[in-house]
Amino acid sequence: MSLYSSVARRRRESIFQINPNRPAKANFIITDLFTNIDEVTKKAFTSSASPSSLKIFLTSHHILNPTVLLALILLGLLTAVVSFFMDLAIQELQYLRLFFIQTSSEILNMGIWIIFCIVLCELAVFITSYLSKDAEGSGIPEMKAILSGVKLRNFMSYKTFFAKIIGVVFAIGGGLSIGREGPFVHISGIIATHISKIPIFSHIHSNLTLKNQFLAAAVAAGIASVFECPIGGVLYSIEVTSTYYIVSNMWRAAFCSIWCAIGIIWLREIGQMKVINSTDFPDVGLDLEIFSFIILGCLCGLLGALFINITSRLISLKEQNIYPMLYGRYRYTLLICIICAVVTFLTNYMRLNDMAVINDMFHSTFSEHGWDDYNLPFALLVFGICKFLLTSLSLSCHIPAGVLYPLLAAGAVFGRLFQQLASLVFTSDRHGVYAAVGAASLVSATTHTISVAVIVFEFTGQIHYFLPMIVSVLIAYTVSSSLTLSIYDAFLEIKGLPYLPSLKPAKLQAQCARDIMEYSYPQITISANLGDLVDAIEEASVFFSKIPVVDSEGNLLYDILVNSAKEYFISIYKERHSSFSPDTAGHLNNFLLYLEKKNKESMMGETFEEFLLAKENNEEVKKFLNISIDLKSEILNLDDSPFAINESTPLAKVHFLFIMLGLNQAYIIRKGALVGMISRESFTKSRNPA
Amino acid sequence: MSLYSSVARRRRESIFQINPNRPAKANFIITDLFTNIDEVTKKAFTSSASPSSLKIFLTSHHILNPTVLLALILLGLLTAVVSFFMDLAIQELQYLRLFFIQTSSEILNMGIWIIFCIVLCELAVFITSYLSKDAEGSGIPEMKAILSGVKLRNFMSYKTFFAKIIGVVFAIGGGLSIGREGPFVHISGIIATHISKIPIFSHIHSNLTLKNQFLAAAVAAGIASVFECPIGGVLYSIEVTSTYYIVSNMWRAAFCSIWCAIGIIWLREIGQMKVINSTDFPDVGLDLEIFSFIILGCLCGLLGALFINITSRLISLKEQNIYPMLYGRYRYTLLICIICAVVTFLTNYMRLNDMAVINDMFHSTFSEHGWDDYNLPFALLVFGICKFLLTSLSLSCHIPAGVLYPLLAAGAVFGRLFQQLASLVFTSDRHGVYAAVGAASLVSATTHTISVAVIVFEFTGQIHYFLPMIVSVLIAYTVSSSLTLSIYDAFLEIKGLPYLPSLKPAKLQAQCARDIMEYSYPQITISANLGDLVDAIEEASVFFSKIPVVDSEGNLLYDILVNSAKEYFISIYKERHSSFSPDTAGHLNNFLLYLEKKNKESMMGETFEEFLLAKENNEEVKKFLNISIDLKSEILNLDDSPFAINESTPLAKVHFLFIMLGLNQAYIIRKGALVGMISRESFTKSRNPA
Repeated sequence: MSLYSSVARRRRESIFQINPNRPAKANFIITDLFTNIDEVTKKAFTSSASPSSLKIFLTSHHILNPTVLLALILLGLLTAVVSFFMDLAIQELQYLRLFFIQTSSEILNMGIWIIFCIVLCELAVFITSYLSKDAEGSGIPEMKAILSGVKLRNFMSYKTFFAKIIGVVFAIGGGLSIGREGPFVHISGIIATHISKIPIFSHIHSNLTLKNQFLAAAVAAGIASVFECPIGGVLYSIEVTSTYYIVSNMWRAAFCSIWCAIGIIWLREIGQMKVINSTDFPDVGLDLEIFSFIILGCLCGLLGALFINITSRLISLKEQNIYPMLYGRYRYTLLICIICAVVTFLTNYMRLNDMAVINDMFHSTFSEHGWDDYNLPFALLVFGICKFLLTSLSLSCHIPAGVLYPLLAAGAVFGRLFQQLASLVFTSDRHGVYAAVGAASLVSATTHTISVAVIVFEFTGQIHYFLPMIVSVLIAYTVSSSLTLSIYDAFLEIKGLPYLPSLKPAKLQAQCARDIMEYSYPQITISANLGDLVDAIEEASVFFSKIPVVDSEGNLLYDILVNSAKEYFISIYKERHSSFSPDTAGHLNNFLLYLEKKNKESMMGETFEEFLLAKENNEEVKKFLNISIDLKSEILNLDDSPFAINESTPLAKVHFLFIMLGLNQAYIIRKGALVGMISRESFTKSRNPA
Repeated sequence: MSLYSSVARRRRESIFQINPNRPAKANFIITDLFTNIDEVTKKAFTSSASPSSLKIFLTSHHILNPTVLLALILLGLLTAVVSFFMDLAIQELQYLRLFFIQTSSEILNMGIWIIFCIVLCELAVFITSYLSKDAEGSGIPEMKAILSGVKLRNFMSYKTFFAKIIGVVFAIGGGLSIGREGPFVHISGIIATHISKIPIFSHIHSNLTLKNQFLAAAVAAGIASVFECPIGGVLYSIEVTSTYYIVSNMWRAAFCSIWCAIGIIWLREIGQMKVINSTDFPDVGLDLEIFSFIILGCLCGLLGALFINITSRLISLKEQNIYPMLYGRYRYTLLICIICAVVTFLTNYMRLNDMAVINDMFHSTFSEHGWDDYNLPFALLVFGICKFLLTSLSLSCHIPAGVLYPLLAAGAVFGRLFQQLASLVFTSDRHGVYAAVGAASLVSATTHTISVAVIVFEFTGQIHYFLPMIVSVLIAYTVSSSLTLSIYDAFLEIKGLPYLPSLKPAKLQAQCARDIMEYSYPQITISANLGDLVDAIEEASVFFSKIPVVDSEGNLLYDILVNSAKEYFISIYKERHSSFSPDTAGHLNNFLLYLEKKNKESMMGETFEEFLLAKENNEEVKKFLNISIDLKSEILNLDDSPFAINESTPLAKVHFLFIMLGLNQAYIIRKGALVGMISRESFTKSRNPA
């Protein structure tokens, strides 16, 4: 098939046109966990004749492999250090803001307060957008996508690292109501990526299984560093990032987060940082008050679903750009920032940071911050509503932002408010318990996790009240998850990342692989030439990472990674390029540039069209593209066990295979002959037909 | 191929002969998780024209599906009730034993004590062996095998249920040093199986995915009922039974175990049962004493590995039957029982049950039970060594037995002993913390779990001391798991259950599917007759659950469940049996009996050989077997998407596929043609070549 027609066809039926709701950016590559399983080990056995047993041990998955242990310790401690200094910076900014408003005039104070907030927030937006736009948002949805096999360009770069750190410090310092756990997870993910690139740890980087374990450990350490909760961190990270979890990975995640917790505890003791104080709740047994906690769980579940709904709508609304005047990056943040600054200035307790609010709620230290100056329930209600709305608004800005801390604070306040009501019926002394249960339940409803209960247990230092806690959390989780997606999945959907959507049962039952497979896909035969390879690379686009090789009867024999195919093309070009005329060399050079930069810069398309013209007209180029491919070449790295399934496999099974094996693509065969291909995109298409 | 030769060949190369170490019992069936995914849903769509949406909802995996919720509540509460009454019975037996030894003569007391123990223990052995031998042992390894797709016959029967309950009550009452968590897990698994057979819950039973989730919830509830620890129960059950875990299952497990915990707390409050008391440890931060906990972790790790080693050796020694005089079921228990009775009678503190020991250690209530009558460290040392050895001996008896409680007690005592040493260097007031950390670390080292830390947190009610706890537990886990298998995996290996062994990296890298596949396997062609089907059923033996169907060129088209094939054969026979002569009917009837009873009773082989003779000589039988198979028959339930992999697939990938998809067998193809089959047994064979 001619290259022209293939390009034209792809333009016509572009996958993005089929899904008009999804943004047309392709800054990701999808890798295939299943493909990688034997790759590294195969390399170890084919590259050197007999690797020493020490070398095998040092690159193995063994639990005592010292290089992995060292990398985990380093990751834990570095995350702790970064986390500590970020916390310190945020705390100092918050002190500074309070320091500035000590003039005698309240109006002057308010002006200073607002200007201080605006400057910091706009700086946060500027730095984020200048250094790396990938730093925007939470980071947890993207980590989830990465752990499921998607490779995001620039997401793990140094620029993103600094953009995220500075952005989140300035945004929280500037009074926006956002949390730190998402950004911390992202930051520790970046630290992990760069640690794994250090030469002595390079085997971690090249082994996708180990690398994923290492990244999962980074996610756990990121959570643990925010709340000093190694156990809760591990469990929470499992719940928010995984569909299934290899149980033996838990050990590495726990090992890393305990080092992180040790580091952070030690640093905070030195730095005398404020922390959430241990509580001293009474023992809570089983009595009628449990019904009160059941109602609290229901309410929190509804509130959580409402929060997810409002936040996603806000973001979608902004993306649709209905009022262009309003939705500019800087203007929008300015608006939100002024709202936040005005609201937080008004009363003493609104100025508190989330940790202080949580401490007040858990320990009933209300008079310290003026909660009960007028009327405690009224103050709680006002704070709760404001916090809820401000958090939702803040999340829609172009800044790095988490959700956990503000929601914990809002939940704790809501729990206390509910306790004021419940005290009309039950006269127990469980004030703080309601706050703790409310906090965990609201977060559970929003993030669809149960393990947040463990996080709250860890920072209260008690587990005496597990009964009301887990009952309420389970109910909140159930209510919310039967109403809506979790906030992280909602973000994933808005961002259009290729995570594997869950399909409706009816669809799973009624269809089979044949019904959703792609009929146009790249492929080459065993007697293909370079031109065919170029066609196939073009055809593979971003959604296929491998090209199948068939024999003359169409039987599927091997497959090749698109990247290996590119390398092979380049290596053949380099072998011969001295013999080309300058004109030909220019054309081919442009094409190579195109191959390398493809997906990064869309304007490279022109270079490619130029090449296409040359291909039709330039004899030398034609001759070059006529060279047969040597399938035995080491560069091509042929895989002789492509993953193929029968065309009549039910969709339920195909979906299960993609989830469990972390597949990116599967070949569909009929009696051994290749008849189609399925990629993750095929599932999304089948869910949202044009 | 003739049936005779196939039988003869299988006898010659029996899989059991290839693995002489594994016992020749075949009381299990292996099911295939992957096969079941679409089965139920397909049924729902094909059996009735359009099922009502309510019916679909009631059989769906939806989180709010009321039938599943109800089943989980019922399971949780029933487990709690059974657990409570078992605890009560054990407690009463222990009181009774102390009540009997109030005579004035110490020698008489000792006699009564020993006889009391012997009577109860022998009763336990008698009842277990009379009712159901499947009740012996822990139950957790078997549940692990079941959750990975192995079906154990009789393991979930009512007889086993009562045998396990009575056995464990009498054995603990009789002074053997065993725990309850393993038997409880088994018991709640049986409850789950029978609940899922109730008509309104029958969709749970027929849907393997839901059923497995339900069983996993039962395991969690079993653990939770022993320690009143819903969170720890869920995590522990995940760690001991799963290789990977579908994160969304966690919700169901947590939901079930919270109901169980509520039930048990309520019953214990009514029944005034003794429980492990909440502790009041001081806050433990980061200081130099952490090194002391590191050493404790190392020591516990070594002790745990030693325990596993000693126990497995004891059991293997017994199975090899070197001293037949010693190893009779009753005689052996008599021996162990006398040893236990004598040792426990000697001092006051040796008579305590595990819970009381744990309370003493955590709360320093030593004088109450005479720990410090002479010399505390000496008493601790004596108790520790005795407990360690007695537990190991008790586990080798033919009784239902868990390991958690006695090891927690031994670990707590060991922690206290270590604290006596550590107090020479550190003069802190953390006595109880050492006991708690020691208890968790020793269990962690033995069972290779981290979540036991959460269990201990839950029953101490505190989490203030998470730092020393998790450091020590991680170290103990690491040390032990780098030395040996976990105790549950060791039991699995001794019992010869077909769990998927982990393979050595070198083997995974050097071999591919072709190297381990079976060349002799059942198969039929699309034009097969009943005789071919019979051959294939015979050939399938216990290790293949499905029979492939190929076309005339050998291309793999469909497969059939062995059970469906049997049903089909029987249905055809029933259609025609009125037309047979009595002689023929007799032969075929015998054969049907053989088909139904096969694997259950080995002497049925003779019936089969008789049938073989008839097949050669009886014209009517020959004619019957010549009937062509109607592949479209609903009874055969043809699957048109058999799971096939390329013959050159590396072993690492094949192994990964089996683990992740819960496969029992896979077809090996070359260009679409069937060339071999791999079952779980193939992996075991390749690991232990003849």
